[in-house]
Formats: sequence, C-alpha cells, structure tokens
Amino acid sequence: MRVTRQKAKEILYSIAVKPETETVSVRDSFMRVLAEDIHTERDYPDCRKSAVDGYAHIVGHETYNPIGDTGAGRKGADVINGDETVFVMTGGNVPENAEAVARVEDAVIEGGRVHLPESKVGENINSIGEENFAGDLVASKGSVIKDGLFPVLFYLGKGSVQVYKKPKIGIFVTGDEILEAGDEYRKGFVYNTNRYILESMFNKHGFDYEYFGHVKDSKEEVAAAFEKMSGQYDIIISSGGISMGKYDYVKEVFSTCGYEILFSRTAIKPGSPLMAAKKDGGIFIGMPGYPAAFMTNLIFYIVPFLKKCYGYETFENDEIGVVMDGRTSSREGRFDINRAVVRAQNGVYTASDAGTQKTSHFNSFARVNALLLLDEETGTLKTGDRAKAIFL
Amino acid sequence: MRVTRQKAKEILYSIAVKPETETVSVRDSFMRVLAEDIHTERDYPDCRKSAVDGYAHIVGHETYNPIGDTGAGRKGADVINGDETVFVMTGGNVPENAEAVARVEDAVIEGGRVHLPESKVGENINSIGEENFAGDLVASKGSVIKDGLFPVLFYLGKGSVQVYKKPKIGIFVTGDEILEAGDEYRKGFVYNTNRYILESMFNKHGFDYEYFGHVKDSKEEVAAAFEKMSGQYDIIISSGGISMGKYDYVKEVFSTCGYEILFSRTAIKPGSPLMAAKKDGGIFIGMPGYPAAFMTNLIFYIVPFLKKCYGYETFENDEIGVVMDGRTSSREGRFDINRAVVRAQNGVYTASDAGTQKTSHFNSFARVNALLLLDEETGTLKTGDRAKAIFL
Repeated sequence: MRVTRQKAKEILYSIAVKPETETVSVRDSFMRVLAEDIHTERDYPDCRKSAVDGYAHIVGHETYNPIGDTGAGRKGADVINGDETVFVMTGGNVPENAEAVARVEDAVIEGGRVHLPESKVGENINSIGEENFAGDLVASKGSVIKDGLFPVLFYLGKGSVQVYKKPKIGIFVTGDEILEAGDEYRKGFVYNTNRYILESMFNKHGFDYEYFGHVKDSKEEVAAAFEKMSGQYDIIISSGGISMGKYDYVKEVFSTCGYEILFSRTAIKPGSPLMAAKKDGGIFIGMPGYPAAFMTNLIFYIVPFLKKCYGYETFENDEIGVVMDGRTSSREGRFDINRAVVRAQNGVYTASDAGTQKTSHFNSFARVNALLLLDEETGTLKTGDRAKAIFL
Repeated sequence: MRVTRQKAKEILYSIAVKPETETVSVRDSFMRVLAEDIHTERDYPDCRKSAVDGYAHIVGHETYNPIGDTGAGRKGADVINGDETVFVMTGGNVPENAEAVARVEDAVIEGGRVHLPESKVGENINSIGEENFAGDLVASKGSVIKDGLFPVLFYLGKGSVQVYKKPKIGIFVTGDEILEAGDEYRKGFVYNTNRYILESMFNKHGFDYEYFGHVKDSKEEVAAAFEKMSGQYDIIISSGGISMGKYDYVKEVFSTCGYEILFSRTAIKPGSPLMAAKKDGGIFIGMPGYPAAFMTNLIFYIVPFLKKCYGYETFENDEIGVVMDGRTSSREGRFDINRAVVRAQNGVYTASDAGTQKTSHFNSFARVNALLLLDEETGTLKTGDRAKAIFL
C-alpha cells in the first residue's frame, strides 16, 4: 500500500485527533495552543497617558506654574487649572483636562516658572483606546502560546486560558541490534537514536510522549506491546520493524488488534517505509528504523500531523526558496528529501548539501538545519540553482 | 551617551561574559552549548551491513542454498561457502566473505533453492567506515545541542559532553504603575509584561534567569536592589527606570556601586533608551519599560549578546529578505524596527505591517513573528518592495 506524499498527508490530516480543551493558568501556558479567541477586556490604554517625560498643561500660556508630579501609581493632580503644569513620566496618566505634554528637554525652568514651547492640542498624549478598544480580537484559536503571545496574555491581565489538551502519545522502538544509552558498545550494534530524535523535535514543538520501551523483533513481543498500549494512548508511534520483509508480522498483529492499515509506504527517499493505521480511538504510526529516515519522515509528515492533533491552526511546514551553494543530486522520477545546511547570506538563504544522502548515514544531522524538497523533475542541482527547503 | 546600533553591538560583544565549562550527561544536554569538538570514536559502520532486506551471497552462482538468517543481534553464519546464502535484514551484518546482497523481492524460492539475479561485487553492502572513520569531526564547539545534534550524540554513544556553563542572570522590574500577574486591576496601571517577554524568549533559546523582583521607582529601592544583586549575578537586567528624565538617579546609583556606563541610548526606534554598564565581574543591561521597546531591544541586541555569553559560535540574528505585502512606514534618517507578520508563500517570505508601530502599543505581538529592519534611507515601503527581516 504505497501512496504518494500528497495522498499520505491527506490521509494523515483526515485521521488527526480532534483535541479536547482544558483551562490552564497563563503561567503554565507556554507552548500550549489556544482553544479560544482572546479579546481585550478593557480599552488600551484606559486612561490618557503621556508619550514622553514632560509637562502636562493647557495650551496657550507662555510660562507655567509647576504644581508637582503625577503618573500612574504616584499621587498627583487629577485636574489642572489655567497655567498650572504637572510633570508626568512616559506612560504616566495625564490630568483629565490637560491638553498636551511638552518634553522635559524642551522646558526651561526660570524663577520658579516653567517655560514651555507651543504645543498642539493632543500632543504627546496617547488617547483612550488608541491601541485597542474593549472587546477587540487579539489572538485566535489555534495560535501557539510562545514568542509575543505568551507575554501579551499577561499584558491583557489574563489569569487563565482555554487550551487544547495534549493527545497521549506512546512510543516503542523495535530492533534486536539496538543498544540503549549507557549500554556497553558491541560491534555491529547501534545505539537507540530515534527515541532522542523524537525527544528533540517534540521539545521544540511542545509535544509530549511516553517511552513505552524497547521491544524485541518477535511477533509475540510486538503483539504484547500493542495489546498493552492500545487504549492507553491516542497515538502510538513505533520505530523500525515495518520494512522487515520476511519478518512482516506487523500486519498480522494489526489485524488481530483491530487496526486498519491506511498505507505502509510513501513515495519519498529516504524512508519510504512509513505506516499509518487506525482503529476506534487509536492511531498507529510506524516509522522506519534508520535514524535519517526516521528524522526525515518525522519532519516531513509527522510534525505537521501532530501539530494538527495538538490544535495548531497552521500546521503545514513552511516551504522557502533557497539558492544552492554547491551541487546536490536527486534521481529524476523520484521525490528526494536531501539534508542541507542553510545559511542567511546578504538576505538570501543559501543551501549546501550535507555531504552524504545515504539513508544509513546520520552524523551529518549534527549540522543539518534544513531539508531540500527535490521533486520528480529536479535531477542534479548546481551552484546558483534554486530549490525549496523546509527548516528542521 | 547615545551610540549607533553598530557601536552598541560592538560594545556588547566586547563585554560578553566568556563562559566556563562543565560536563553534563548527554541526557541533560538538550539546548546546552558544546564546549568541545565531537569526534567519532569508531568507524560508522564498524561492520559491513546490508542496505536492503535480502540474500547475502558470493556472486557467480545461479541458485543458492539458504542456510538461515543472520543480522545484528541474531545468530547466523559469519562465513558462507560456495553457493550458500543467508537472509539479512536492512542494517544487519553480512557474513564476512559475502560479496553482495540481492533484494528479497528479486529472489525466487523453488524446490528449496533460491534463484538470485546477477549482482555486482559490493552491491547493497554498506562498507566499513563509509559514513565516518574513527576520529572524524562530527560537531564543533559552540554548537547548540538541539534538532539533529542532540540525537547524534546518542548515535555516537556519548555518555557525557562538555558544555558551557550558563551565566547567572538576574532581572528586576521597576515602575510604580506595574501590577503583578494575579493582582486586581487598577485603572491606569499596567500588568508586568516584560518579565514574561524575557521568559518566553529565554525559554526559546535555552537561557535561564532568576526574577529578583519588582522594585519601586525610588533611588533607595533601586540602590538596595543593586547592592544585593551585584556579585550574585554575572548579568543584571532591568526593565524601566532608565529613561525617567527627572528621576534619573540610576546613573548616581551606578557610580556608587562602581559601574561604568558604556552607553545609555541607541539610535533605534522603538526603544532608544537601552543602557549597558559594567564593573569587574558584572554587566548591567537597562532595558526600556514599554513592552514593545523591551521586546525589540531584547531581540535585536540582547538575544545575540546573550548567545555569545552562552558560548554560541553563531550568535548574530539572521537577516533575511522579504517582499512587502502592503505598506510600512519608517522615517528617513532614522533606523526603524517595525513589527510584521511574515508568511512563506510560494517559497517567498511576504511581510505585512502589524498595523501599529507605536512604542506604547504591544497587543500586535500576539501575531507578530518578525521585525523589519528599516535603515535610514528606507522611508515608506509599499506592496512588492523588498526589506530585511529578523525572526523572533
């Protein structure tokens, strides 16, 4: 059941878990996804405020009588009369009948009087609601609470917000040749890497997982793992064991457990053996075992799929144009995803091939920060050619 | 002491803390910065491995005698004789004298014999050291342990790594008009936002800080905070209180505490009041109080500066070309940093002005994901014009 990459994405997005919602304190909301639209509850600002450090006054006098300081949190005159002036700091409230604020650096104090330059009415005063009126939409459902949105929630004085619940994701790793971190090395074996690929990329996107464990390459062990995990997790992800040719008992295990296989291979390189299966209340994603294939599939298919399951409004990878710095090869007629190092140079992204594109190699991912998407017509690219890339 | 943006960066980079190093377990190294170069300790792979699921054999026979399975972690023949063949899985070790592996899908089993198509010597066998030989450089000092590098450390079987120690950063917030999260709202006041801007951006980059607290706008309180924090932190960051015109006692506090002021204003908008000061073993960064000015200065100056203090080899912001979708205004003769929403469309980044660029406004940061760098010659840009941007 080999499908095109477009069909695979279509199937994945169609089975994505629809997340439930919960309320969390804003303090704990970093990297969560908004499940409600956020509106202002009051005008911003809700008082007239000074845009500068200076003297609030009624326009039309040549000199003014300084009657003290004011400002938010400071006691001061709420009203001024005639030629009275009060000193206000930037962001401070201005007396309700002040018409302008003159900058402190333009004021001259002489004989107890303040000389101010001529101001226009409204000068250096931020008016009520000029940023937002009460009820304005500030952030939409499906936005990730990070970057500027996290502090904006505090700026708005929100105590708690409605966010999407995180789907429960469990992972297991198959492979008799896999050593766990800390195991003594044995020739011909490989250390469990895919678990940490998942951890790295999941940390980046605010996803969680539980590590169910390492399962031996036997029908009985895989079946037992499935039996235990089904019902416990919304999404089960495995690494390895799917492209096992002769040992292809996974399909049998699946039908016993009631899973319907949606596809078992997609038309990309590296990592064509990607499996998706589902049953009521459960999704299974079987990832290829080679770390480079695992990582590529994770970034190309699974991160966008999981973003959708997490409630992200925008979940597809951004594809961005890059200019090749050096050659990169792809086979015509095949969709290749090549590892690359992308740099911003004079405002343009340039991409260098990571030096090896073999599925069995992984070390170049220490430097790789992007994947080149080379479609069926691409062939070999040389310096100056353009390509599309997605960042890790 | 107003300086250009170039001069401000030069000064900041020159005073950046040179970080010490420490050893941490790879398990705890996510988002830390490598303080050592990482080399392979063995060949990758260190055994000849099969690139496919198939039959390992000596070339030149028409049919073969299947003598079982092999593979990493599975018992199997280490050597084959004449027309013997063993089944190997992808990534599995091949017998030491096997010459090729034929794909399982190309094999025909008939009467207990396996018919294999003609193979070239070496076909579908990954040779020893083809990815890396022992001692190859995989990652350089100053790389951030995230994305692919984190799992590569596990792939290499590393137990621990040398990383840079995190400088100790303490922050305090000034302003009598500041309410803390959870405080009941009072008209004309504003909620502490800058603390959470810092938390959001620090989380993103793996920086840590301790929140010292909220300090009243008085010389005594600021001096007391300084006294307590000096010596306790490598870097002290404050918000507000620097551009306070008449209440400009910070300089006095500084000279009492032995700090030398390096600059107190930089030629950017929003947020020209940015102060840097230093004394032996201590750096002070005074940030402007308006959240939009705080955020802009943090991204433009302070994140790159802190990356350098954290040991990042590459610390400057990537500037990338965008195409305007709509107008954005800047004043000729001034360096303006405008908030924008940047989207990838058909491989090109398009930028829309966030709708307000006033220093006193902040809510648009709920959507803003980039800052446009509009230099002194820019003026107003319209749809289709090009600009440079940095991402948050």
